[in-house]
Amino acid sequence: MATLFFEPSTRTRLSFELAASRLGARVLRFDPETSSTSKGESLRDTVLTLTAMGSDVLVVRHHLADAPQLAARWSGVPVVNGGAGRREHPTQTLIDALTLRQRFGGLDGLRMLIVGDVANSRVARGHLTALPALGVEITLVGPPSLLPGSNPWGVRMSSRLDEELGDVDVVYLLRIQRERGAVSGYSGDRAYFSAYGIGPERESMMKPSAVVMHPGPINRGVEITGATADGERSLILQQVANGVPVRMAVLESAVGGRK
Amino acid sequence: MATLFFEPSTRTRLSFELAASRLGARVLRFDPETSSTSKGESLRDTVLTLTAMGSDVLVVRHHLADAPQLAARWSGVPVVNGGAGRREHPTQTLIDALTLRQRFGGLDGLRMLIVGDVANSRVARGHLTALPALGVEITLVGPPSLLPGSNPWGVRMSSRLDEELGDVDVVYLLRIQRERGAVSGYSGDRAYFSAYGIGPERESMMKPSAVVMHPGPINRGVEITGATADGERSLILQQVANGVPVRMAVLESAVGGRK
Amino acid sequence: MATLFFEPSTRTRLSFELAASRLGARVLRFDPETSSTSKGESLRDTVLTLTAMGSDVLVVRHHLADAPQLAARWSGVPVVNGGAGRREHPTQTLIDALTLRQRFGGLDGLRMLIVGDVANSRVARGHLTALPALGVEITLVGPPSLLPGSNPWGVRMSSRLDEELGDVDVVYLLRIQRERGAVSGYSGDRAYFSAYGIGPERESMMKPSAVVMHPGPINRGVEITGATADGERSLILQQVANGVPVRMAVLESAVGGRK
Repeated sequence: MATLFFEPSTRTRLSFELAASRLGARVLRFDPETSSTSKGESLRDTVLTLTAMGSDVLVVRHHLADAPQLAARWSGVPVVNGGAGRREHPTQTLIDALTLRQRFGGLDGLRMLIVGDVANSRVARGHLTALPALGVEITLVGPPSLLPGSNPWGVRMSSRLDEELGDVDVVYLLRIQRERGAVSGYSGDRAYFSAYGIGPERESMMKPSAVVMHPGPINRGVEITGATADGERSLILQQVANGVPVRMAVLESAVGGRK
Repeated sequence: MATLFFEPSTRTRLSFELAASRLGARVLRFDPETSSTSKGESLRDTVLTLTAMGSDVLVVRHHLADAPQLAARWSGVPVVNGGAGRREHPTQTLIDALTLRQRFGGLDGLRMLIVGDVANSRVARGHLTALPALGVEITLVGPPSLLPGSNPWGVRMSSRLDEELGDVDVVYLLRIQRERGAVSGYSGDRAYFSAYGIGPERESMMKPSAVVMHPGPINRGVEITGATADGERSLILQQVANGVPVRMAVLESAVGGRK
Repeated sequence: MATLFFEPSTRTRLSFELAASRLGARVLRFDPETSSTSKGESLRDTVLTLTAMGSDVLVVRHHLADAPQLAARWSGVPVVNGGAGRREHPTQTLIDALTLRQRFGGLDGLRMLIVGDVANSRVARGHLTALPALGVEITLVGPPSLLPGSNPWGVRMSSRLDEELGDVDVVYLLRIQRERGAVSGYSGDRAYFSAYGIGPERESMMKPSAVVMHPGPINRGVEITGATADGERSLILQQVANGVPVRMAVLESAVGGRK
């Protein structure tokens, strides 16, 4: 398995590598920062090179939403999407679906808020594509500047978190992706937190059974307090823990027909 | 096996690491950018340190042409040259010799053009040292500023690619190493391509059996078009694929007497 | 085993990884520079994430002296201190104790100078905490600006190296940690060497049995000459070689009760 991560990552790359290692695979880590991409090599040639070296599966993260599909076409070997542009992050969606099923016994009928920088989030778009088909009802919440400009999913969108909190089973938080140019419209972390952050006060407005999730990395004091992140409602570490077995399953499924 | 790559690399380092792994060796990757060389440690002490940790073989890439020889003297363990200054890149030469033998059945009598930034190329110098002894006749082609200042090999040199193309079996392309200060004398990639790049038009001037090679990374549209790189004459991915078994053989040969 | 090195390292990280590999463990290398810490993730969340992925032991290097203790409290798994602020570097202390025992048969009664940038050295503080309990008598030597501001260990401190050299068994050299703001008060490497560096001239003032040690990376010509570093008194490479088995023992001891 070769990992081609053209954007920074802790959880995703390491959990793919650990998953591969647990399956007995060798890991080729392509690292754009010390590699020939600094000599101008294209994504295409990187993919072809790693494939020619004998990779049986590639894991690609790239700022272009089409990169995994392009890589699959060029390479001829299975390509696992490790996060593509703003479009989707499918293993995260699978992980979150599993985490919810572990907690609630199933997904059908769950109501989920996705809160924060939805506009820049591939996780949010991936969830919007997949989770409604499993019966999850999603509402997007955030300042107008961080909500998507269009709504092809036909979901509710709101900028008033407090009006939404009481009715939902899942509050799915997103960090503000300043590296993608996100501007929250709030003058500081504190102002943003008071409008959209989750802490004990807002927890008290939620149903007793409602949970808090986050794809990480979290920013304590911005979108979530430490008390909530480490508290009983938080499924954040369960999401991380599920990353390895879910990615083992994805990898095994991807190469199963080939080996 | 410890890899000490003081210059960026995708193909070479990863294929050495994969080769070592396939031989059952452990890999110690020394990464100058996150390491104590930022605290001022010398090449010598890095070599001595990695040797003291129990390395049985070192693979060294360095901007100094003598680095592998120095490393071998200091360390006392076998050192494989992973690319040294502008002088040589011997595993690449072995890979290319194998690739040519696979295609042509042998090397004796083959005529090869090496085209482009010859002046800065360790690959070209390594080929000039080794391949004539195997019967390959080499001609160097490039703008005057990118041809070597001296010609100890006694080979032909030319700046007119089109006059040379029709007679040769192998067109070996090199990228322009701007990071080594190369100046082609052409005002842009397009102007360079029109003088020295290979695309369908120049392919039509070549013998039907002639092949195109490149040590990578390639720059599509500069020294080669995508159509040629991905076409039937191209041995580029075969060169990459041969990297792993050739380096396995080199490593096994290097440590064979020691283990 | 997960390595979390928030400061650059060659020896320590690689020797931990090699130690883990020799024990049959998988290695998760967390690399702050290409990771989510560039998105603002805290030490705490990095620790929790790597633990949630299934790490059985963490190795932490951090500029904060408390980082390993905090990591242990947060994670619940054993944490090995890979170097903490200016406070301690305990595996280095164990390595040096072993190296001295190998050379002298025991530590009790040995007299050691620690020379150079003591103020910024976690190695020196670790040695001051542990080695006197094993019978080593330590004297600190360096320019006043590089000696500690307080002396909780009650050891002798001196700025005149030549007066101390003749009586000791061990001269333990430290490099000047400019990255921590160290200012030696000398106008150049040469001036510093003439006051505190060890070369053949000062070797002649030492007892015949006395040894020279250094935790690395060394700076030839600054705190030590090449002749001394590579000479018979030097235990420097033995220190490096002992790194792997000592860290194997530490790791096995750390996880022994858990697996």
